[in-house]
Amino acid sequence: MTYRAPVQDALFVMQELAGLGQMYQWEGCEDATPETAQAVLEECARLNEEVIAPLNWTGDVQPSSFEAGQVRATPGFQDAFRQYTAGGWQGLHHPSAYGGQGLPKLIHAACTEFVNAANTSFALCPLLTDGAIEALLTAGSEAQKACYIPPMIEGRWTGTMNLTEPQAGSDLSLVRTRAEPQPDGSYKLFGTKIFITWGEHDMAENIVHLVLARVAGAPEGVKGISLFICPKFLVQADGSLGARNDVQCVSIEHKMGIKASPTAVLQFGDGGGAVGYLVGEENRGLEYMFVMMNAARFGVGVQGIAVADRAYQRAVRYAHDRVQSRPVDGSMSKAAPIIHHPDVRRMLMTMRALSEGCRAMALVAAGAHDAAHAHPDAEVRRDSQAFYEFMVPLIKGYSTEMSLEVTSLGVQVHGGMGFIEETGAAQHYRDAKILTIYEGTTAIQANDLVGRKTVRDGGAQAKALAAQVAATEAELLAREDAQARAVAHRLAAAREDFLAVVDFMVAQSRSQPNAVYAGSVPYLMLAGNLVAGWQMARALLAAQAAASRGEGTNFLTAKVLTACFYADHVLPRTRGWREAIVGGAEALLAMPLEAF
Amino acid sequence: MTYRAPVQDALFVMQELAGLGQMYQWEGCEDATPETAQAVLEECARLNEEVIAPLNWTGDVQPSSFEAGQVRATPGFQDAFRQYTAGGWQGLHHPSAYGGQGLPKLIHAACTEFVNAANTSFALCPLLTDGAIEALLTAGSEAQKACYIPPMIEGRWTGTMNLTEPQAGSDLSLVRTRAEPQPDGSYKLFGTKIFITWGEHDMAENIVHLVLARVAGAPEGVKGISLFICPKFLVQADGSLGARNDVQCVSIEHKMGIKASPTAVLQFGDGGGAVGYLVGEENRGLEYMFVMMNAARFGVGVQGIAVADRAYQRAVRYAHDRVQSRPVDGSMSKAAPIIHHPDVRRMLMTMRALSEGCRAMALVAAGAHDAAHAHPDAEVRRDSQAFYEFMVPLIKGYSTEMSLEVTSLGVQVHGGMGFIEETGAAQHYRDAKILTIYEGTTAIQANDLVGRKTVRDGGAQAKALAAQVAATEAELLAREDAQARAVAHRLAAAREDFLAVVDFMVAQSRSQPNAVYAGSVPYLMLAGNLVAGWQMARALLAAQAAASRGEGTNFLTAKVLTACFYADHVLPRTRGWREAIVGGAEALLAMPLEAF
Repeated sequence: MTYRAPVQDALFVMQELAGLGQMYQWEGCEDATPETAQAVLEECARLNEEVIAPLNWTGDVQPSSFEAGQVRATPGFQDAFRQYTAGGWQGLHHPSAYGGQGLPKLIHAACTEFVNAANTSFALCPLLTDGAIEALLTAGSEAQKACYIPPMIEGRWTGTMNLTEPQAGSDLSLVRTRAEPQPDGSYKLFGTKIFITWGEHDMAENIVHLVLARVAGAPEGVKGISLFICPKFLVQADGSLGARNDVQCVSIEHKMGIKASPTAVLQFGDGGGAVGYLVGEENRGLEYMFVMMNAARFGVGVQGIAVADRAYQRAVRYAHDRVQSRPVDGSMSKAAPIIHHPDVRRMLMTMRALSEGCRAMALVAAGAHDAAHAHPDAEVRRDSQAFYEFMVPLIKGYSTEMSLEVTSLGVQVHGGMGFIEETGAAQHYRDAKILTIYEGTTAIQANDLVGRKTVRDGGAQAKALAAQVAATEAELLAREDAQARAVAHRLAAAREDFLAVVDFMVAQSRSQPNAVYAGSVPYLMLAGNLVAGWQMARALLAAQAAASRGEGTNFLTAKVLTACFYADHVLPRTRGWREAIVGGAEALLAMPLEAF
Repeated sequence: MTYRAPVQDALFVMQELAGLGQMYQWEGCEDATPETAQAVLEECARLNEEVIAPLNWTGDVQPSSFEAGQVRATPGFQDAFRQYTAGGWQGLHHPSAYGGQGLPKLIHAACTEFVNAANTSFALCPLLTDGAIEALLTAGSEAQKACYIPPMIEGRWTGTMNLTEPQAGSDLSLVRTRAEPQPDGSYKLFGTKIFITWGEHDMAENIVHLVLARVAGAPEGVKGISLFICPKFLVQADGSLGARNDVQCVSIEHKMGIKASPTAVLQFGDGGGAVGYLVGEENRGLEYMFVMMNAARFGVGVQGIAVADRAYQRAVRYAHDRVQSRPVDGSMSKAAPIIHHPDVRRMLMTMRALSEGCRAMALVAAGAHDAAHAHPDAEVRRDSQAFYEFMVPLIKGYSTEMSLEVTSLGVQVHGGMGFIEETGAAQHYRDAKILTIYEGTTAIQANDLVGRKTVRDGGAQAKALAAQVAATEAELLAREDAQARAVAHRLAAAREDFLAVVDFMVAQSRSQPNAVYAGSVPYLMLAGNLVAGWQMARALLAAQAAASRGEGTNFLTAKVLTACFYADHVLPRTRGWREAIVGGAEALLAMPLEAF
């Protein structure tokens, strides 16, 4: 078994930190009992451990392949995708009206981690399909929803997001794909889209492309972009497939990682125009796409956690098995498994603490998302929504950046073997590097965090978050326990660093926008670090409480120690970022462009 | 041109910081005038920019290949190697008695950076040959030196280091390859060596393998290991090649990076025993090998600087060309080249500051190495030697770790294009990951730093270093300049963090060895960061002085700003490491092994 889904840790976080225990009392969430959650996670773990995880390496050595407009998925992926969708996993959190299970995002988020850890390339196909479903749920007509969503949930069709063009990546205002209105109310699309994940493949009968394009005469910039459905095969009135649409895959990319996930260049309209159907209203496409993108950003953050945990598990196995050198404390007279060496343990604990901290951050945010939609109290709903929105750039930005560190440590623990591809550690390192880039680079997340999430409300939400952290510090201090107290002090120091930076951001955003944005990514890292460390501190409290109820297990011991380690080794990084942000922009802004 | 050798920066550091201006006055260094250094660096730059750099990508897509015991190098490598050795580069710092140029390490170090930046895979072949030459110079007999060194300097033969076996990597006490004495004074070798860089290839007529093995009856552990010459082809009395020796390449590895460098599994003695010749005395092999390894560790640190600089140059080019989004300060009404965006500049400045800081650290250490050998004053020689030895683990450990950060940022600056292999940024990211592993992992360097370099002398050398840093702070403060003063304050904070950690290491090494070694890598990072930042501060002083003499150039402006950026953004990281080291080991040591 190369992957063990962290069912116990996910359930612990869901119940103790993310509000799973209350959720089933909310209207529409009646099915989301702790028992159901456990059953769902266990079943999800089984499928991913047994069926999907073994295909991860296969996908690296036999990537999806392209020939004459056709893409063939990695051998085994078709069958795995059939099992995945037959098990109902594609519809897990989508409405039952369209064939979904209607479970909350909290349960879905945990399951998403498992499939991404099992096989990131594979998991991208359902992740993009989820995004297409969300966009249609938000803005599609009833007829569009009824036509397109059920087959996607069944896995007969899949979905894609078509945003990027060669000249338009982070900057979607530069999109040029054009849409010409037709007499029958449809449009004809013309243009080239690149970096289209699972944009062409042979795992499903049809592919529902959601495409950003400009209607002739639309305003310049982002306010002139509309969203279109452009299916690979046109759909007839009875739902059966009709003619092949004029959208062609002209190539797929040769990438450093996630090689099994085909990244397509799609050509629309070379044969007279690809038939597209407007979603919602003209010129509001970006707004709709943002709904989808926010879900996808959360999803990519979870990918970071997933890849990190897989890398951690692999490194732990190796550290138990590999025998090399005597322990420095003289406790053994012979060479020992390397997990006995302090630096190997430091690396493993760093990997573990970062993964667990980010998992807790993501699941708590997912719980807040559910509360924002279903909690009976309007004030809780509003606060939960504000909290969730603050979290999205942290989950996307921080969890993916931490996955780079964790997968790098994963290779390092293996020594020279880590650099040999067959060992498997290198794949995680290569796969992870896309996560800080797609669905908005870390800088794009940081812009969102600074502009929309921090400065716009004068730092109110950021300070509300800090107040919650301070409340946890008070709980820790009240425990009168050495470990809890130590964590409280580390947390307080990190919170003060956070607040100093928030004050700087809010105060200087108008007068020194360049200095503020020069600090945006360090601010994102600082905030993500604080929130993940805060959740670990909450986990320590919950684990100590459970242990005091007599639930003494290795799991609880490890949770407390991992929280302490996070506080000791990871939280203190905030000081460096604070120093860099506050007063650290001058030199970088003064540098003449030609001097670089 | 995909690579521009940083001739100006190297010469600036060599003259202003590393003592090049004095060196030609020392006995044996008469040729090392600043003029000669400049001419050598310019010629080296030309060869590497024009001939060797263009083969870097070729090597990634057409790696060295293995068939039936033969390894074929990447197309173009043979010819490039002929040009490299014909130019005298292999012998640059080796004694003229054996055909070398006899130039100091300072000049050689700069040249080594250029060839490694041009093509890391290619550069490994001369790097290993250098190691073999150094080992023979240290411990070989006069006959061995005369026989083997000149052909290696001429490039007709190359050299290798055969240490690692499947069960013996970081822990060489586990070496099992055995050597049986023969009546004629030679030995027969039997065993398997792995991870042998350029262990087999078709770029030279012969390969001089230096092999660690145990003579029958030798003591257990590292004190029973001897060093042998085991040439691929036996050498006849007249120096011509004789019979093929019984050493066979049985496979090469499939690696994540440096794919053009063949990493061989070598089988010794399957056909009755490989003929080996003892180097020096029996059972002193590891001691000799350490001479070679120290040179190689310095060389690998330089590889980190090299790959980082290449990644930086690529990212700068892309950032000037790629147009995306309007600047946040509203200074342009249209999408701008991304170098206008503050976060892109932050990334580029981070890459630049780390690369320049580590280059300065390495060249200053190289200058100290030369002073240790050739300075007329015995006290200076002794102090320089102690300084150099303290630097080696920092150069190897910190420069390679920083290369991971820099190459990751290099991909990030490219956005989605960075993940596409053809862009080239991904190759640097993949190549760099071996640098923190081979020639001793970062943890092995950190053990050396803690044990042999810090604790053994009670922190004396570490404190002497801190005193030198403090002297630079005083110079900065005396300048009465805002930038210099700001750098002085950052430097003082980092130095205090360093001293606190040194005190902890020295005080606790006996009572809490596990806690001390749990902090060894963070200590290495802290110390490397301090030293690189200190050299940048010295560079600021030198650049300001040069500017005040009227030498006003973009180069001097950029140097001052890069030093300020290092101080503002990179130096403050020391606090996080200090906190992690001092009092941060408890949780990681308390974690039960079965709970990982």
